[in-house]
Amino acid sequence: MTGVETQTLQLQTRGFNDVIDVTPEIQRLLQKSKISEGNVLVFVPGSTAGLTTIEYEGGLIQDIKDFFQDWIPMEARYHHNERWHDGNGYAHLRAAMLKPSLQIPFLQKKLLLGTWQQIILIDFDNRPRRRELIIQFSGVVQADENSQ
Amino acid sequence: MTGVETQTLQLQTRGFNDVIDVTPEIQRLLQKSKISEGNVLVFVPGSTAGLTTIEYEGGLIQDIKDFFQDWIPMEARYHHNERWHDGNGYAHLRAAMLKPSLQIPFLQKKLLLGTWQQIILIDFDNRPRRRELIIQFSGVVQADENSQ
Amino acid sequence: MTGVETQTLQLQTRGFNDVIDVTPEIQRLLQKSKISEGNVLVFVPGSTAGLTTIEYEGGLIQDIKDFFQDWIPMEARYHHNERWHDGNGYAHLRAAMLKPSLQIPFLQKKLLLGTWQQIILIDFDNRPRRRELIIQFSGVVQADENSQ
Repeated sequence: MTGVETQTLQLQTRGFNDVIDVTPEIQRLLQKSKISEGNVLVFVPGSTAGLTTIEYEGGLIQDIKDFFQDWIPMEARYHHNERWHDGNGYAHLRAAMLKPSLQIPFLQKKLLLGTWQQIILIDFDNRPRRRELIIQFSGVVQADENSQ
Repeated sequence: MTGVETQTLQLQTRGFNDVIDVTPEIQRLLQKSKISEGNVLVFVPGSTAGLTTIEYEGGLIQDIKDFFQDWIPMEARYHHNERWHDGNGYAHLRAAMLKPSLQIPFLQKKLLLGTWQQIILIDFDNRPRRRELIIQFSGVVQADENSQ
Repeated sequence: MTGVETQTLQLQTRGFNDVIDVTPEIQRLLQKSKISEGNVLVFVPGSTAGLTTIEYEGGLIQDIKDFFQDWIPMEARYHHNERWHDGNGYAHLRAAMLKPSLQIPFLQKKLLLGTWQQIILIDFDNRPRRRELIIQFSGVVQADENSQ
């Protein structure tokens, strides 16, 4: 038997490329779910944040912040800013490129990530934000739940 | 009970970074489907277009077009063009970077997007194209369908 | 009836932006699976490789290698390298940007890819690597399997 469980994860970010490791929380939600084999869809509603995986260590965290600033600078000229005057055109573009969804397979309630591979949210916006991630597990309901 | 519904969405694009908001059509297909909780996989067959989300407003549409032209210029030299002479090497690279798939969770037949977050197709090719997107809903079949 | 099948695909790469077409192997695994309609999640555990689709021809393979070297150069200065001295900071950044997962829909056991669209793994690391991809099929178990 297969099923779907849709949950949410509340986060407070500092904005400005805040990089947050959400792996432990997702693994904890997976432990409590009834689904043992399948995948988790992690999704951030909103258009100024994105998701990917990285080795979560201080050097790389700095590297990815520097990288985004070099690639899509906060201070460049954006048509979005000229129209809306909220100054976060750079954040919209970065988020559109990193994309809002990520999927990780799991087996026996264990995420099949590499040893040095963590799931991160990057909040690109130019202010602290309260974020609510969607954490949706899909797959096979574990046998002992089936038989009850 | 869970199920899968695989549908298609026909689009006529103008090529040259045409940015098309496909959210209303996907929400409309979701309304007509039998699946109430789960996710939709949006996929573009072809190697010169991609999918992401963005706040669909004129300033940002212009910003993302300018961004792709700065990042992966149409007029640069590509080995692909030298071999095939179709002049769309830039479009292949942009599409490979943006990627052809996107997944959005939904609950009670409502896409869990942010308020200012729309699903867009970008057609990078150097000519108008007829595109057929794959729209695949997976998840829980709604209760009233179950009981019939 | 729906189900999930989680398999692995072993690969030996040469590292250094090795671009490997994994489409035939995934199509072969799909043929042998019991799932006829749904999607495949392709996932690379590890933080120095990524997945996308491209037209797999020699010109574009060279173009995408050149592109990554121009965009995120191997020889630039990375905080990661200064801390860990493994010299693959560039590979971590490229992988975080390309992302480790990809999803392709299928129908009647046929991947719904474009004619000139192949699924590729790019191994960015600075040495040959043995990789194990996760290939997870989710969807409708084919009718003749159902009735047995």
